[in-house]
Amino acid sequence: MTYSGASSRTLSGEISEEAAGREYTLKGWVMHFRDHGGLIFIDLRDYSGIIQVVFDENEKNESFKSAKKLKNEYVISVTGVVRRRPAGTENSNLKTGNLEILAASVSILNTCETLPFQIDEETDVNELTRLKYRYLDLRSKRLRENIIFRSDFAHAVRDFLGKKGFYDIETPFLTKSTPEGSRDFLVPSRLNQGHFYALPQSPQLFKQILMVSGFERYYQIVRCFRDEDLRADRQPEFTQLDMEMSFVEMKDVIRLSEELFESIFKKVLGAELATPFRVLDYDEAMNTYGSDKPDTRFNLLIANLSDIFKDSSMNLFRDTLSKGGVIKSICLPGGYDIVSRKDIDELLAVVKDFGGKGLAWTKVSRDGSLEGGISKFINAGEKNSLLTKTGGKPGDIIFFQADSNKTSNNVLGRLRLYLAKKYNLIPGEKLDMLWVVNFPLFEYSEEEKRIVSVHHPFTAPAMNDLKYLETEPLSVKSESYDLVLNGEEIGGGSLRIHDASLQERIFKILSISPEDAKVKFGFLLDALSFGAPPHGGIAFGIDRILMLLRNEHSIRDVIAFPKTQKAYCPLSEAPSGVTEAQLKELGIRLIKKD
Amino acid sequence: MTYSGASSRTLSGEISEEAAGREYTLKGWVMHFRDHGGLIFIDLRDYSGIIQVVFDENEKNESFKSAKKLKNEYVISVTGVVRRRPAGTENSNLKTGNLEILAASVSILNTCETLPFQIDEETDVNELTRLKYRYLDLRSKRLRENIIFRSDFAHAVRDFLGKKGFYDIETPFLTKSTPEGSRDFLVPSRLNQGHFYALPQSPQLFKQILMVSGFERYYQIVRCFRDEDLRADRQPEFTQLDMEMSFVEMKDVIRLSEELFESIFKKVLGAELATPFRVLDYDEAMNTYGSDKPDTRFNLLIANLSDIFKDSSMNLFRDTLSKGGVIKSICLPGGYDIVSRKDIDELLAVVKDFGGKGLAWTKVSRDGSLEGGISKFINAGEKNSLLTKTGGKPGDIIFFQADSNKTSNNVLGRLRLYLAKKYNLIPGEKLDMLWVVNFPLFEYSEEEKRIVSVHHPFTAPAMNDLKYLETEPLSVKSESYDLVLNGEEIGGGSLRIHDASLQERIFKILSISPEDAKVKFGFLLDALSFGAPPHGGIAFGIDRILMLLRNEHSIRDVIAFPKTQKAYCPLSEAPSGVTEAQLKELGIRLIKKD
Repeated sequence: MTYSGASSRTLSGEISEEAAGREYTLKGWVMHFRDHGGLIFIDLRDYSGIIQVVFDENEKNESFKSAKKLKNEYVISVTGVVRRRPAGTENSNLKTGNLEILAASVSILNTCETLPFQIDEETDVNELTRLKYRYLDLRSKRLRENIIFRSDFAHAVRDFLGKKGFYDIETPFLTKSTPEGSRDFLVPSRLNQGHFYALPQSPQLFKQILMVSGFERYYQIVRCFRDEDLRADRQPEFTQLDMEMSFVEMKDVIRLSEELFESIFKKVLGAELATPFRVLDYDEAMNTYGSDKPDTRFNLLIANLSDIFKDSSMNLFRDTLSKGGVIKSICLPGGYDIVSRKDIDELLAVVKDFGGKGLAWTKVSRDGSLEGGISKFINAGEKNSLLTKTGGKPGDIIFFQADSNKTSNNVLGRLRLYLAKKYNLIPGEKLDMLWVVNFPLFEYSEEEKRIVSVHHPFTAPAMNDLKYLETEPLSVKSESYDLVLNGEEIGGGSLRIHDASLQERIFKILSISPEDAKVKFGFLLDALSFGAPPHGGIAFGIDRILMLLRNEHSIRDVIAFPKTQKAYCPLSEAPSGVTEAQLKELGIRLIKKD
Repeated sequence: MTYSGASSRTLSGEISEEAAGREYTLKGWVMHFRDHGGLIFIDLRDYSGIIQVVFDENEKNESFKSAKKLKNEYVISVTGVVRRRPAGTENSNLKTGNLEILAASVSILNTCETLPFQIDEETDVNELTRLKYRYLDLRSKRLRENIIFRSDFAHAVRDFLGKKGFYDIETPFLTKSTPEGSRDFLVPSRLNQGHFYALPQSPQLFKQILMVSGFERYYQIVRCFRDEDLRADRQPEFTQLDMEMSFVEMKDVIRLSEELFESIFKKVLGAELATPFRVLDYDEAMNTYGSDKPDTRFNLLIANLSDIFKDSSMNLFRDTLSKGGVIKSICLPGGYDIVSRKDIDELLAVVKDFGGKGLAWTKVSRDGSLEGGISKFINAGEKNSLLTKTGGKPGDIIFFQADSNKTSNNVLGRLRLYLAKKYNLIPGEKLDMLWVVNFPLFEYSEEEKRIVSVHHPFTAPAMNDLKYLETEPLSVKSESYDLVLNGEEIGGGSLRIHDASLQERIFKILSISPEDAKVKFGFLLDALSFGAPPHGGIAFGIDRILMLLRNEHSIRDVIAFPKTQKAYCPLSEAPSGVTEAQLKELGIRLIKKD
């Protein structure tokens, strides 16, 4: 074992054409070991890049003999003179591709066992193995660049917000269980047995308290926790850019967020981002895209055909309308040829999965007439209006839903995404950012049989709707805004309630009793009554944003040490068993399984 | 309730002399409400500073009438013209002290209940009350400036390390229980019932894994957790600046840390820091200051008098020496007059508390003769050597310990600090930074009856000591370094073992069986065998550093939302009870108390 000093080392990235003829010592990892008889080539990889090293049998030194012992991923220190590569052997993929080092001496700083998979090769190795040997997978160009991008991204965020006068303020991780959210991770307290901390789902209450404290501009890049049943794109711990500002209106938070992304794009992607972003009203998003996080990179817009079919010869259409439902559609351009009878069967199954009752359709034939599906129930007048409203042209196919507005939107919104993927309608390179605003404040939860908050109970209602807060709560809008990128929600926020009595009214509508409110949120209600300023904020999901910007398919690929969908870490084998003594100290025991 | 926009607002800090005569709208908190009959004065406090606002009964507007309703800590929006204050009424304590705003209109954005304590007043209000209403206490100048300083400090750290090519990489919070450390906070897993995550005591293993992954330069400002019985200056969650580098020697980590602090001092304190810092060998620190984190702002050095007293007429001294012990002392300048008989009784009790058997002493009288205590047992030759060795002068007092070297050092080290505090020998303004290096690798734990690591089991042994690792483990030094500021350890680190077989030897010496090592650290051992580079790092305690730089007495004063010594948060009332249903989901139940 040797302790080798950085001081006695040159990075490959520091070696330029002018270095030719001079001797340097480099340290790093062996890549692409190639034994060509009298010549051995390796690529030496360090933190700054890659450079080719040549060991030549004809050179009068020991290096060639030592090089025979090298294997891929050995850690070495190599000393030699930099020279231009012979003409025709340059590698334009490397920054140092015109240069190489002719080794004079080499020493092995550490060896490497046989690799379970080859670095940088996209093989069929399963993800569990890659996660178990994460330190090997992290050496690959792709993951390495993702993690470095993440660091650069965080740096750009902090730089921008620092300049805008935001304070980076740390909030507690051992905090109080948050009702009205997802499931908390709990931490048993040893010093207060029988009591538990909760890991924060977000610093929501603390950032509001910071506004009451007078800091006015807060941000934090902070880990948050949710004990959910994990889907493909979730992690039990995730990172949020959390912000809050005092004395602001919605437009201030929106403008600042846009400037933030402009600045980040410029710094880490070298790209200009067009601002302001498009702003969609929640109702418009639902009615046009069938989603509150619409993917606007492609069309396939939902059209409302209720007016057209009010006298339809189809019972289904008339019945639906008479029950207050709607007839809606999307039109797939070119669908006449590409959607087969078999595809339609598949789409019908898919639509039923999405909660639809069925899938009516009609094709528009070359001569402009309707063909197949429900075409025979559509008269000439209806046809003309239909093609106008849907933009349907010869060669297209139109799909219908006749159902409640909510179900029709939802089913067509999901069908829209399904068709776009199936028929490759999504431009790969495009980044489409937009705001969705004016969400409803409340929704009715069938599960809980009560009114619940769409965002969280601290969201401010729209001023103009205050008057029917109690009488028509479900029609009250909120001062809220979500940021959507390529059909993924990447951020969301709202103005908050800063008036204790209004907050109490909201709790009442949510069926949270004054006693419960006091136990759960007492400190927030207290704080609101001691000079709380008007305030609002937003939080961005960093993992999701990085995944989209890096064109990855999983947030696991932008997290250094992610967990599996079972919330398990194959590297450290967490979670794991603990001793009886540990549990006893905490005053808990395991429930025996039956 | 109104939602007031930042766009329609000027900050007090933006108002300069040139603004005089112009009208602005400001928003913030009412401070120092003063009703002078026809004139009402307030200080308006916002995020950027404070400015005086005048409401004049003679002005033809409603503002005076509205101002009558104001109280301290109300949140208001006020519009008025900036003017120079009348000569003689300027306030040089304020940046805007030559200016005031003559209010034309004012609106109340929020009210404030009667305050439980006055902002900015250092009263006798107990800390629990201050923590319960933390949002009020955080409005005080002192706490506010501490939190902003903390944000600036973090920014300066990131700026420096970013420029030095360090990557900010996030490590998991839900991780594996770390043996060989303090007690972990555990998090029961719902998806893997009966298994637990642990919150990290530090990202030690993950940062080493990042080095094996090839990132070479890592840092993170990261929360860490220890479930300890809390002392005054500890918190269950604390913040660490964590760093790791590959291909470095001790001097590289030391030099980079010094540059980091130079840069921070310049940026956040506007001060030049003298580097390199002093470097003390561990043995020297123990023998001279009786501490591995010596406070070097004052002298009172420990002297070894064993040679002088080898033929002492005192049985105690001779017996101690014959048993392999030592005679050591510290000399308190001016102690002749200021240390009374009663003080000596007090010091004796204190020394016994520290683990000493007694406290021998002698005064040096004005004429240079020894007086009192053990003076009659000290002959002329011994006296001369004693005064030379201790630097004792007429008017001083010398205290002795005759005991094992370890106990003598420890007792005199603690007595040294006690005397320095009691007699005000510590210069308040001084910041003294130094390194303590070459700690022993191991120590014997009486409690566990086995050899344990002084730092942690991944610390590299000194190269030269490898040969007697197994034969004389307790005399093996380590490649470690602690950074000490004013007698507090503010950082510590080491070079790490990067050789799997050496790591296994260390585990064996620590009586960790190969099976145990595999279960506990298997993934690290694996990683070391797959091309691990030489590496080392350091971690700094941010809370402690900020406390010292802000001249505070508790780390609670530099943390936005600290917990009490019972690990309790009076603001949110965490930890708290949870429901049976929550526990059942986690597969745990509470142990009933007897």
